[in-house]
Amino acid sequence: MSYGLFTLPAEENFAAKTRELAQLWGADAIRNSDGTHLDEEVKALGKKIYSAYFPARGHNEWARLHMDETPMVYLLSQRVLAEDDPTTNGNQSDTSPNGAKTRVEIPFMKTFFEEQLQPYYDADPARYWEVTDRTTGETIPTERWHVDRERDTVIVEPAECFHEYTVTFLASIIWDPVEMYNHITNNWSDHEHAVPLDVYQPDTRDFIMHAYQEWLDANPEVDVVRLTTFFYQFTLIFSAQRREKIVDWFGCACTVSPSALDGFEREYGYRMRPEDFVSEGGYNSTFRQPTRPQLDWLGFVMHTVRANVKRMVSMTHEAGKEAMMFLGDQWIGTEPYVDGFEDLGLDAVVGSVGDGTTLRMISDIKGVRYTEGRFLPYFFPDTFHEGNDPSIEAWSNWRKARRAILRSPISRMGYGGYLSLAAKFPKFVDAVTEIADEFRDLTAKTGGEGAQGSLNIAVLNTWGRMRSWMAYTVAHAKPYPQTYSYYGVLESLSGMRVNVRFISFDDVTSRGIDDEIDVVVTGGAAGTSFSGGEVWKDPALVSTLRRWVRNGGALVGLGEPSAVNWQGRFFQLADVFGVDREISQTLSVDKYFPALTRGHFITADVPANETNAEDGDIEPEDFGGTVYATPRAMSDIGYDFGEPITGTYPIDGNVTLLSAAEGRVQLATNRYGSGVGVYLSGLPYSGRNARLLERILFYAARREDEYEAYSSTNPQCETAVFPKTGWMCVINNTNQPQSTDVKVPGQGPVHVDLGTSGIFWRKI
Amino acid sequence: MSYGLFTLPAEENFAAKTRELAQLWGADAIRNSDGTHLDEEVKALGKKIYSAYFPARGHNEWARLHMDETPMVYLLSQRVLAEDDPTTNGNQSDTSPNGAKTRVEIPFMKTFFEEQLQPYYDADPARYWEVTDRTTGETIPTERWHVDRERDTVIVEPAECFHEYTVTFLASIIWDPVEMYNHITNNWSDHEHAVPLDVYQPDTRDFIMHAYQEWLDANPEVDVVRLTTFFYQFTLIFSAQRREKIVDWFGCACTVSPSALDGFEREYGYRMRPEDFVSEGGYNSTFRQPTRPQLDWLGFVMHTVRANVKRMVSMTHEAGKEAMMFLGDQWIGTEPYVDGFEDLGLDAVVGSVGDGTTLRMISDIKGVRYTEGRFLPYFFPDTFHEGNDPSIEAWSNWRKARRAILRSPISRMGYGGYLSLAAKFPKFVDAVTEIADEFRDLTAKTGGEGAQGSLNIAVLNTWGRMRSWMAYTVAHAKPYPQTYSYYGVLESLSGMRVNVRFISFDDVTSRGIDDEIDVVVTGGAAGTSFSGGEVWKDPALVSTLRRWVRNGGALVGLGEPSAVNWQGRFFQLADVFGVDREISQTLSVDKYFPALTRGHFITADVPANETNAEDGDIEPEDFGGTVYATPRAMSDIGYDFGEPITGTYPIDGNVTLLSAAEGRVQLATNRYGSGVGVYLSGLPYSGRNARLLERILFYAARREDEYEAYSSTNPQCETAVFPKTGWMCVINNTNQPQSTDVKVPGQGPVHVDLGTSGIFWRKI
Repeated sequence: MSYGLFTLPAEENFAAKTRELAQLWGADAIRNSDGTHLDEEVKALGKKIYSAYFPARGHNEWARLHMDETPMVYLLSQRVLAEDDPTTNGNQSDTSPNGAKTRVEIPFMKTFFEEQLQPYYDADPARYWEVTDRTTGETIPTERWHVDRERDTVIVEPAECFHEYTVTFLASIIWDPVEMYNHITNNWSDHEHAVPLDVYQPDTRDFIMHAYQEWLDANPEVDVVRLTTFFYQFTLIFSAQRREKIVDWFGCACTVSPSALDGFEREYGYRMRPEDFVSEGGYNSTFRQPTRPQLDWLGFVMHTVRANVKRMVSMTHEAGKEAMMFLGDQWIGTEPYVDGFEDLGLDAVVGSVGDGTTLRMISDIKGVRYTEGRFLPYFFPDTFHEGNDPSIEAWSNWRKARRAILRSPISRMGYGGYLSLAAKFPKFVDAVTEIADEFRDLTAKTGGEGAQGSLNIAVLNTWGRMRSWMAYTVAHAKPYPQTYSYYGVLESLSGMRVNVRFISFDDVTSRGIDDEIDVVVTGGAAGTSFSGGEVWKDPALVSTLRRWVRNGGALVGLGEPSAVNWQGRFFQLADVFGVDREISQTLSVDKYFPALTRGHFITADVPANETNAEDGDIEPEDFGGTVYATPRAMSDIGYDFGEPITGTYPIDGNVTLLSAAEGRVQLATNRYGSGVGVYLSGLPYSGRNARLLERILFYAARREDEYEAYSSTNPQCETAVFPKTGWMCVINNTNQPQSTDVKVPGQGPVHVDLGTSGIFWRKI
Repeated sequence: MSYGLFTLPAEENFAAKTRELAQLWGADAIRNSDGTHLDEEVKALGKKIYSAYFPARGHNEWARLHMDETPMVYLLSQRVLAEDDPTTNGNQSDTSPNGAKTRVEIPFMKTFFEEQLQPYYDADPARYWEVTDRTTGETIPTERWHVDRERDTVIVEPAECFHEYTVTFLASIIWDPVEMYNHITNNWSDHEHAVPLDVYQPDTRDFIMHAYQEWLDANPEVDVVRLTTFFYQFTLIFSAQRREKIVDWFGCACTVSPSALDGFEREYGYRMRPEDFVSEGGYNSTFRQPTRPQLDWLGFVMHTVRANVKRMVSMTHEAGKEAMMFLGDQWIGTEPYVDGFEDLGLDAVVGSVGDGTTLRMISDIKGVRYTEGRFLPYFFPDTFHEGNDPSIEAWSNWRKARRAILRSPISRMGYGGYLSLAAKFPKFVDAVTEIADEFRDLTAKTGGEGAQGSLNIAVLNTWGRMRSWMAYTVAHAKPYPQTYSYYGVLESLSGMRVNVRFISFDDVTSRGIDDEIDVVVTGGAAGTSFSGGEVWKDPALVSTLRRWVRNGGALVGLGEPSAVNWQGRFFQLADVFGVDREISQTLSVDKYFPALTRGHFITADVPANETNAEDGDIEPEDFGGTVYATPRAMSDIGYDFGEPITGTYPIDGNVTLLSAAEGRVQLATNRYGSGVGVYLSGLPYSGRNARLLERILFYAARREDEYEAYSSTNPQCETAVFPKTGWMCVINNTNQPQSTDVKVPGQGPVHVDLGTSGIFWRKI
């Protein structure tokens, strides 16, 4: 058992076991969690003391007296159909209904959770609310609607028969969403609902600062303040059924107030509309192409948040403590990947590690002295209950995180939740013992630096660096049918022997592609900020990328890359990828699929006996006027390309088709001048898929000759090399034993047998 | 063996066998086919004589002297990338490429078949051609490009570096596409290429009429002139590889000439642009939402064609013969479902029967005395070769057609091609003997009238009646991955016990929904003329349909019905269908799938042991923030919903979910006021699927109580009832024996055992 770099969650009245586990797991720091406090006995263990501090919740003594100073949110009501006015119904003709007038009532709180949200009437609805005809898109003039506050209902009159109407209204957030989530998940019955505070309000801001100073003064034993977090919760709205209704880990919907709206207008010279926040019900999800008001508001919020973060950090330092920010909960406005974050003075960032991608989201942050990962599972009864084995999730989480740590290390690790729950699961306790030891060992052997990558990869989308490792994400580490095929690419990259950066379309048009970039990866669902939508009508973007690839670059397109229906193409860079998507606009033009190519560098891991090809190439087959490679081709070679992208086809016979099924292209490469285009329909994360992507990138970069060095013959294993410390390691990314050979340059192949989740170290 | 209603294709030097087969198949008419002539001996058999006549091809003696009077076509060249000018390349910066100028050459004939198409230079390219920057959409001013006629190349200078350019040029069609197709398919080596004639040119028009008169005079023995067809071929363009490059059975691209373009301008007051014809490479496919110029041009062509058709029909009648139009080949401009067709005076229409839908395309035509179906397989060597059994296709074709004939009969049947080929396949000869007898028998028993339908169904799209039974079609009876899921609905309807009409969005907004319509079916791929695209922003359309359903109507949405990204919905009638599609614009809003409903009227044919449900309802499962019904649910119940439509979800918990898989809804119903909305993701044709649709329609119309009468318990069998003649029949739609019970009202169930493809008749 080694010691250090490990933070243990403590629990009240659990001191003896805490001491035991602290020793077993080598903890050098102890923290409390939401809803727990540290016993004196635990504080006396001699560990570094972390204490969670909640600047904007848990101060109900103030909040209850200032219920108009909670953060607010614009909410979009359900759509309500305007039916015939019952009094005139009998007189109207069924065949000419248009233009008939009626009256519609919108009980706008109907779908929302009344314990969390309360309509805010003190700011004049006529000025701060908006009623919309969702059939025409028209904003209804205020003379045509009024509010019945008794019934939380808006009445529109006259309304057009058989149009749908919505109200966008301002609501106070009267229950902190994270505390609410914990409360509901844990069936807390004895906790008072935490009311959130809005730092934008001067009195409340003063209170927040005073309260913090008092707390700092009152807690001299605390070494590290784990700020959880600052002021504005990411969007998390519950429904009348007490379940999640709206979630966006990046959403800054919950940052509104009448005074902030007015302040914004003074600063930016225009007024935010309610619709600017709810965006037709999309709530400015990062998947939508951002609008100017949305970006301006984000800037406005960031300005407020950062100024107050800076102030709290200074206070922390003045009290002789470290300031550690939790990346989550009320992290909105901190934006760790936007310039200026380093000026806040934070000592550390800690975040939840859901997988390799979320690990990198923490470990790639610049401008703090150290980073810490809080691993999963969280010690909550939803996982730690009889009949479940939490060690399975612990190992799976560690395997994904470990890949990423080898490329970009975090400085420390830890867990969170109720320690007493974890202590009841000995197999889990053993797993953490092993993982903690392994983490310390690898930190020592790597010198806390990431392995050097062989290629430089840039992920290109609307957000660029600002959303580093945050692309394709709705909620932290959670899969969605619309996201997992793209997120899998990030997850694959997170632990791959490549260097990764995130760049924006604006970067490309303003600065071109940096010389050291080997491969650019772009794409996502059509019409999203990740694919880019309308930006592809910009000839500067299109021709910069074409020129770069033509002169030797490499562009990998995912799913619906460069997609916008324009000038007869759907993928504007179809000429680069060699693939376009038929969206039924050019159905009259025949599509011919060349035969599949076997024995390609990219698919070289497919054992010959798995291809199911009888003899030589797959023969094309006929489908209407169109000739396709046979449907069996794909699944035979064992890759999962995720959600189907229908209608993709090779634009000509020069395309190298590597996988096609059911009339769709999953994987193809295309020589483009001196460079290479690759089309990949999607790639959920798995060991085999990550390997496929690695081969794609080396092929696209025309660095196939460098592929073999330090490569594992077994795709389920990966290697990392640390020239500075003279170590290399081989990891097993599965929960099965694996064997592999690694080609070490200048030496013969090294054979390695690895146990489940195993790691092997060797001096080079 | 019975006699009559049957047309036999004859062949030269094959008289004895022709006589034998004529007797066996009960032929009362003999026809020649493309490339064959009738022997005197055959003409003497005493049968009615059909003779194919080709008004616009096969007159090379004239055509060769008037090569500037062939129909022409606007062709869109391949896209050519403007690369760096080699002379300046070294001096340009890689990082600021935009605005750099170069020179680009477009060898515009490169991808086209030179034996079919020839650039037409006599009309000034500067006036009649168009060069387009496909990166910006800009039309390049004529000063910036010129033509090198020697090399069939357009040179653009200056051009923008790394933009793509196209030329839209006028080409003469120098080989009739159908004769070319037959020529290439049959490897004819001794046939002269048939040059097509353009009826718009006065001299050629006079020639066409004179030649026809001469032919009429010279062929007194001909009873029926099978006009094959008139003047303009549907779009059929071959590539340099001698294979199909562009096909559109409805396309009127091959109708152009400088004089027609000028004539159009005089008549319509504006000039057609080359781009109006090639539409970014879509060539005005019926799947594209039609533009005003496209519709005007169609009207212009129809006017020309119909005037000349009328003239030829009169000449035919004056010669004492019948005029029969072939629905195919040069049918463009006749438009049998547009008002005025009945004024042409045609006696008959004959067409190829590919399935039930194409049968109905013929049999539903009004304004002719009789219709004839030319069944498949065509007697060509691609089907009639050793090792193949053409009787399989004959039966399959007959089974699909028979369903449709029972609902809307054709008057006569026949086959086409080389009789000598068919004669070599005795099993096929027997099949036709049986089919011909069955056809005559059913014509007698039904009195040549269709069975009365139980429901009135309207298929709603942009084209409406004009494209009756032609919706979702690129090429006659051919499946495409983008079409089969929708076409299957038409195919199911073609033989179903319902009455079908086709209505347009304009019909709905201008006249509402006719009282007698029970169910409206609409949908298709988003952005197509069938789904409707932008039309759904019209509040008149949306509110008329809402009102109609709300007051008791029924609307079935297919695939992406009412789809346009507008005001937060993708399906504008999501409130009616109960289903919308997530196109990643509202990902932050949670979607919850209710449990699947079992034991529903619509899915009542699913045997209980096929559901794979352990106990009761399917449990929802978690996928990110979204809860879905389990993926296994669909395939378990045995329906094929065709191409996946990703991201469909129930809009609320009131939706009745009947099939959902992998986070998608395939089938759901939704109460909407007094009416019903149904969502169906797609439905390729099969017996089981047709039955599913039948149940959907009866359910949606709330006529479940009428479903059982004359219904077959076995979904692979169907019934048709003919009250006027007092017969009912039961058909077996499979090539396996089937047993079924039919509930005859007032009697008990009738048990019927049917052989493969069998039919059973019973007096009611």
